[in-house]
Amino acid sequence: MSPDVDAWLEEKRRQPFESTVIPLEELTEPGGWRFAPGTGNLEHHSGRFFTVEGLHVRTDHGRVGEWWQPILVQRDIAILGVIAKEFDGVLHFLLQAKMEPGNTGLVQLSPTVQATSSNYTRVHRGGRTPYVEYFTEAGRGRVLVDVLQSEQGAWFHLKRNRNIVVEVTGDVPVGDDFCWLTLGQIRRLLRRRSVVNMDARTVLGCLPVEAPAGAPDGEEVFDRGPEPCGLHTMTEVLSWFTGRKSAYELSARLVPMDSLVGWRRESGRIVPEDGGNLGAVGADFSIVGVRAHARTREVHSWKQPLLAPHGLALAGLVVRRIGGKLHALVRAEVLPGHRDTVELGPTVRSTADGRGGTPADPRPEFLDYVLSARGRVRYDAVQSEEGGRFLHAETRYLVVEADDDFPLRVPPDFAWVTVEQLLALQRHSYYLGIEARTLLFCLNNL
Amino acid sequence: MSPDVDAWLEEKRRQPFESTVIPLEELTEPGGWRFAPGTGNLEHHSGRFFTVEGLHVRTDHGRVGEWWQPILVQRDIAILGVIAKEFDGVLHFLLQAKMEPGNTGLVQLSPTVQATSSNYTRVHRGGRTPYVEYFTEAGRGRVLVDVLQSEQGAWFHLKRNRNIVVEVTGDVPVGDDFCWLTLGQIRRLLRRRSVVNMDARTVLGCLPVEAPAGAPDGEEVFDRGPEPCGLHTMTEVLSWFTGRKSAYELSARLVPMDSLVGWRRESGRIVPEDGGNLGAVGADFSIVGVRAHARTREVHSWKQPLLAPHGLALAGLVVRRIGGKLHALVRAEVLPGHRDTVELGPTVRSTADGRGGTPADPRPEFLDYVLSARGRVRYDAVQSEEGGRFLHAETRYLVVEADDDFPLRVPPDFAWVTVEQLLALQRHSYYLGIEARTLLFCLNNL
Repeated sequence: MSPDVDAWLEEKRRQPFESTVIPLEELTEPGGWRFAPGTGNLEHHSGRFFTVEGLHVRTDHGRVGEWWQPILVQRDIAILGVIAKEFDGVLHFLLQAKMEPGNTGLVQLSPTVQATSSNYTRVHRGGRTPYVEYFTEAGRGRVLVDVLQSEQGAWFHLKRNRNIVVEVTGDVPVGDDFCWLTLGQIRRLLRRRSVVNMDARTVLGCLPVEAPAGAPDGEEVFDRGPEPCGLHTMTEVLSWFTGRKSAYELSARLVPMDSLVGWRRESGRIVPEDGGNLGAVGADFSIVGVRAHARTREVHSWKQPLLAPHGLALAGLVVRRIGGKLHALVRAEVLPGHRDTVELGPTVRSTADGRGGTPADPRPEFLDYVLSARGRVRYDAVQSEEGGRFLHAETRYLVVEADDDFPLRVPPDFAWVTVEQLLALQRHSYYLGIEARTLLFCLNNL
Repeated sequence: MSPDVDAWLEEKRRQPFESTVIPLEELTEPGGWRFAPGTGNLEHHSGRFFTVEGLHVRTDHGRVGEWWQPILVQRDIAILGVIAKEFDGVLHFLLQAKMEPGNTGLVQLSPTVQATSSNYTRVHRGGRTPYVEYFTEAGRGRVLVDVLQSEQGAWFHLKRNRNIVVEVTGDVPVGDDFCWLTLGQIRRLLRRRSVVNMDARTVLGCLPVEAPAGAPDGEEVFDRGPEPCGLHTMTEVLSWFTGRKSAYELSARLVPMDSLVGWRRESGRIVPEDGGNLGAVGADFSIVGVRAHARTREVHSWKQPLLAPHGLALAGLVVRRIGGKLHALVRAEVLPGHRDTVELGPTVRSTADGRGGTPADPRPEFLDYVLSARGRVRYDAVQSEEGGRFLHAETRYLVVEADDDFPLRVPPDFAWVTVEQLLALQRHSYYLGIEARTLLFCLNNL
């Protein structure tokens, strides 16, 4: 156990890591990355890791009916695994100080294991992923949660990872970059900018834990009660969700990168031609190359492509007490990389400065409310998205509690769902998108 | 209400319907179906209904690592809707005697509404789909269930439909081809061959209803209790399911029909070149054309392609009482059309005569047990698969109750799950495949 987490993390952050943006052309080398002949897709010679391919999207949802974009394709399921153990009656979680080339601050707190099968089957000839056997071998402990969840539907094609927490009782050797933390300690770190990484947030957020504000460490309440109910019954919530999926058509087909309309290669990057204002959610980014150097990674230095979003994003959630129960106003979000068209997103998704895709775009619903802070701000911090795939992708996560004058009747893509209902849905795959999961986790850890 | 369902159904079956197999070339006509230039895909000029495309599959699951096959692609979500209403305290369901060109017996009992948006937005210029407003307009009644579920993962690419039951209290006009039936009446019809169609089975099977054997009509028990538990907790079941998805890789990409390896057009059909023994589950079929003539359909006569499986299929489920609770032995099935690689299937899937893909194939696990009837046969009837897409596709559904000497330890792709747990999972999409849902429905209606 580490009483002084801050000092330990500071020390880890002082290590000599390096990450430099390089032209995409410098990625290509025998045995490394290449632009595949005939398609222009960026791929690794081993066929593993991920590829950058083209996507052709057509939909009757939103203002833009058709567009092309690069998208990250990663078929194998990564393990995002956390080992949990009780010390003195308090559950602790073994987190890792992990460097990723796209991280702000380079080192952030990650799950015990964050590894694709490329990692743990050693495609890139690094060392063995520590602790992976706790998740790949049966009988190492009691599984608290084990569920596939999606990642950014605007940037990943059908991506999902295995979110798993295993509670053990025996001794666990603690490696140099690892540290046991309580939920209380993690809660405090969540207040700081880009310390707890995306993968740690999504795994821990899947725990069936409800920590009421002010509860001392370790007094988490495991939700085991009967079916939660709020403004809507669970059957009504599920029916609304099904209805939203049925309301929209979306065709998203992989196409060769060389055939993308509206994108070009320029100065060693792949960039959108009109400066990025495509009007499609999240399609405002470039594809860049990086060279990374690290001592704690499985391999010591490597090159790879990253997706670099243009500017800080905003994910805002409006919550409100209704009938004594805390409800969140979630939105049915249509994104091209979703496995089934729609997942639940925050109330508002936007760029942090509130501008839409183009000056002509209508402002997103509830954006002004969220930014005006007419409600009580319950959470407001910037967090990083996955630094192994994105370059300095950060999102301002904002939870605003609305007063009783905030409308209960909302447009068709929105619904008031209780926090308990969201936790129940989160036991299953592909209900909550990754931003909604982060917001729920932060909300539950106020 | 119809006390004499049998007589009503017999009358409907005596109507002059007709369905004739024709060469695929005869489907093509201006404004109708065509082989798309450049791909050879079969498609309708309107761009609606469905298409027949090619699929290239690669997987590390099973004996066959790579194959090509035609597959049906249907992106829009059909409504499979049933209106329910209480008469004299007993819940009744409004079913329709519906003709489909691929049905054995041509007319079967279908949901109140069984319509793609092509139907109810009148692409083929037929009449309005009766009752569709009960499912497309809010406030018509209380939703009992509303969930997207998959269909045959060997024959459909990512297909899913909206399974919805709405309970109403007001008057419902009953059309000529419609009839109110109780669950008891439906239960008796399930004993007969190919009377209750696939869509009616899947919708009604999604109801949270548990009807213990011998319970009189209307005494269904709506499961509202705490989380069901059996040999495994729900967390363990979910973790096993997640583990199975993580264990296998599957790449299934749509490709032009013209590029399919191992298939050819012959005598007006698309047939597998080696007689169909590809060794891949469910890939033993042809694509054929039919001309249909009907009076009760939205349009009176039409031509369309159908997928014609070669022979009767078998779906066998082993059940066993463990600790007083009925458990089913389900199998994690990898099929190329699944939205997320794996869904739960029956214990055994095979051809009805028990032969595998080729003489060299190992016999499927538990096949001999299911066919030997060493256990007690609880259900044994042949039912039709969807007659609007498949030609005379029938499956022998078999539920066998095993004795206490049947092993509790089973291979990794199998798990003992209680009937209550399966019902709880069925509230969500893509856990139970269509055959498992039919078996669960039949089991619950013994």
